[in-house]
Amino acid sequence: MAEFSAALGISPDAIQAGRGVRRELANAIRGAVRTGGLPPGTRLPSSRRLAADLGLARNTVADAYADLVAEGWLTARSGSGTLVADRTIAQPVMVPPARGLSGDPGCDLIPGSPDLTAFPRAAWLKTARRVIAAASDDVLGYGDPRGRPELRTALAGHLHRARGVYVSPEHILICAGISHGLQILSRVLARRGAKNVAVESYGLGRHWSLLTSGGLSTFPLPMDAKGTDPVLPNDAGAVLLTPAHQFPVGTTLHRDRRAVTVEWARRTGRFVLEDDYDGEFRYDRQSVGALQGLDPDCVVYLGSASKSLAPGLRLAWMALPPALAEEATTAKGRMDTCGALDQLTMAEFIASGAYGRHVRAARRRYRDRREALVAAVAQHAPDVRVTGVAAGLHTVLSLPSGTEQKVIEAAARQGLRVAGLSRYRHDRARRALPDALVIGYGVPSDAAWPRALAALVRALT
Amino acid sequence: MAEFSAALGISPDAIQAGRGVRRELANAIRGAVRTGGLPPGTRLPSSRRLAADLGLARNTVADAYADLVAEGWLTARSGSGTLVADRTIAQPVMVPPARGLSGDPGCDLIPGSPDLTAFPRAAWLKTARRVIAAASDDVLGYGDPRGRPELRTALAGHLHRARGVYVSPEHILICAGISHGLQILSRVLARRGAKNVAVESYGLGRHWSLLTSGGLSTFPLPMDAKGTDPVLPNDAGAVLLTPAHQFPVGTTLHRDRRAVTVEWARRTGRFVLEDDYDGEFRYDRQSVGALQGLDPDCVVYLGSASKSLAPGLRLAWMALPPALAEEATTAKGRMDTCGALDQLTMAEFIASGAYGRHVRAARRRYRDRREALVAAVAQHAPDVRVTGVAAGLHTVLSLPSGTEQKVIEAAARQGLRVAGLSRYRHDRARRALPDALVIGYGVPSDAAWPRALAALVRALT
Repeated sequence: MAEFSAALGISPDAIQAGRGVRRELANAIRGAVRTGGLPPGTRLPSSRRLAADLGLARNTVADAYADLVAEGWLTARSGSGTLVADRTIAQPVMVPPARGLSGDPGCDLIPGSPDLTAFPRAAWLKTARRVIAAASDDVLGYGDPRGRPELRTALAGHLHRARGVYVSPEHILICAGISHGLQILSRVLARRGAKNVAVESYGLGRHWSLLTSGGLSTFPLPMDAKGTDPVLPNDAGAVLLTPAHQFPVGTTLHRDRRAVTVEWARRTGRFVLEDDYDGEFRYDRQSVGALQGLDPDCVVYLGSASKSLAPGLRLAWMALPPALAEEATTAKGRMDTCGALDQLTMAEFIASGAYGRHVRAARRRYRDRREALVAAVAQHAPDVRVTGVAAGLHTVLSLPSGTEQKVIEAAARQGLRVAGLSRYRHDRARRALPDALVIGYGVPSDAAWPRALAALVRALT
Repeated sequence: MAEFSAALGISPDAIQAGRGVRRELANAIRGAVRTGGLPPGTRLPSSRRLAADLGLARNTVADAYADLVAEGWLTARSGSGTLVADRTIAQPVMVPPARGLSGDPGCDLIPGSPDLTAFPRAAWLKTARRVIAAASDDVLGYGDPRGRPELRTALAGHLHRARGVYVSPEHILICAGISHGLQILSRVLARRGAKNVAVESYGLGRHWSLLTSGGLSTFPLPMDAKGTDPVLPNDAGAVLLTPAHQFPVGTTLHRDRRAVTVEWARRTGRFVLEDDYDGEFRYDRQSVGALQGLDPDCVVYLGSASKSLAPGLRLAWMALPPALAEEATTAKGRMDTCGALDQLTMAEFIASGAYGRHVRAARRRYRDRREALVAAVAQHAPDVRVTGVAAGLHTVLSLPSGTEQKVIEAAARQGLRVAGLSRYRHDRARRALPDALVIGYGVPSDAAWPRALAALVRALT
């Protein structure tokens, strides 16, 4: 019996100690079978003998055996006793979790994430504590599928003040990121019979492939200094744009083109999807409101806390045309998807002004970084031009033709990851833009930023 | 000019006070146009005159006008000055948010939610504080699409100990509720060519319709005292079951049928979807492990914190067969959907033992309620039988034939909402079960429970 207990990898005390002796024993035997400690065909001791060996009631052992027979781990044949069943299940192996997209902030200027070290932990926690203490029990139940009303109300006001967005709280849909929003919208559009979505010829492939897996093909629109040229065929199902600060090129959609785009939507009854992912960050005097303000009835506004606070919150929002609100809620699954406590904390964070203070402070820090970048490049790499308006968390460095890959490799030798503009090109984009880097200067910590900037300059020279 | 400022509904001070004077002014004019204060065709004062009126720089007013012209609110015609554009946008109206599904816990015995007043706020907040303080900055970035590794690791261990589930952390997918999980799975199954899913003839219509909107039809399997009868045609795309505690009937899937179901899956290469929504709550001695334990390669296990903690957390998990893990992550959108801080708090809540303590305490409270219910019914309504195994947060009261609707109305007169069994019937279910109520005794607060029970007994007698 000793070796059997050993094979189980359990001591009688272990079993005795555990709650639910029968389950403990069954788990131990299961584990031994899985890990090969008890190979298929092994005859188990009789329940009486094992019970004596482990100092358990015989019924407990018999019941555990019965459970395992029912589950297919053991077989009980009259005459031949209880055997380990002749089937093997691959032993699961733990592999290291996939790397977060943020990468090592210390040596990474690839756009996509804000400075995570600047997340206002103390203020957020203070707000969360207040909210959790004050929340009614109802908050912990199944909530409104659209998201917490407190957050939708706070956002309606904030988006109006900050971005000129016109939306009433009941037409806001809280979602778990702009990706989630696009997933929902692709279902809505597909159900409305849309076949394709016009996109910008440079942008995020991740967003395009979300539309594709939603059953929509994407085709690119040309771009120039005035931003994306909305030459929209009548059969386009929708158009996805980043009007405030084109990603990655950094232009602002020209006012004429804003008007033309909305005109097209009004005429065709189609929708404009406005990705305002970094609309909170504008450093120059010019204030460009959201495209949604031109016509809330035909523009879907998408925003998120991923750049203004942190992607890890998984908090985003859509301001929906009233005509789409119901369909989008259905496509979301008629269930809220975001934790109620985070939503209430975000609502209170906005209402208390803490959010505004954080965004203004972040804006100053990012503006200073951008200025440092412009100055350093002008001084050390005069051939390189910094393009794109002064906004957002990224900018474009135009390189001498044919040097993009070389510079990326030079940066890598400095331990610095940077992205070339070409990686953002839509594979059907007709015209290729000149060589350039897309620099996400929002990514590093304040401590790491000077090092990253110095490495970048070395790579450029 | 006075009446114009009045129409704007702003005083010069208001404007002066605001940050971003130009935007404030533009917002005020937009608002006035929206609300009809400035009807289409109204000529605005020249920028010079309004600037003087409001004590602003003329350029500020001119720029605000220009913004509004660009946005289509105003039109500027040389000669005729600046006019309110001739287009109207319906004024959005705030409507009260839809009622949370949890309803008023005081007079509600409709299953679906645990006692929300019992959520361990203090322990949760304490854990959250520890976690937020200790978390690496990386946690705040874009995380692993499958969910935080800390939570998947904690769950793999917990599910093995508590439910006999075999899964390695990299095959766990965190999702925002079992509904979200079913949404993801319906996409996976549809992409694999599945046309339909076998379901139980009584269950949650919400889950069935999620499969339907995923492009899969559902057909019901017969049920009897041994639970659902897995008479599965070879062309069934999958089967969705609640084996531990059938919802709503309350039976436990018989061991023979568990074996038959898994056999079918192995033979056909299809998958069993196991909804273990209240698997943590079992009051009798018998320990029934998850069906998943029979064959982790062909059973998808779905669990959530909605019954063990609170639906408002929107935290659930799937233990996936390795063959499905990649497809499910893609169908999820290759992005994490749940807040990192809640996930880390949940992971720590499990690891620290706080979760286990909470579940055990809840189990005792729900068991006591069930016993009180059984005793009260036996004493006051001897014709009514309490059926279903002693598990979960709901039970079934079998009523004299033809009385279901009458009892529901009698309860309503007592101010008590209860659900009839018939509301959970699949519309294609061949056999209708006898009249009964499905009583969610987990819903009320401890304070409200005696009142709810008394009202129920009055309705039954």
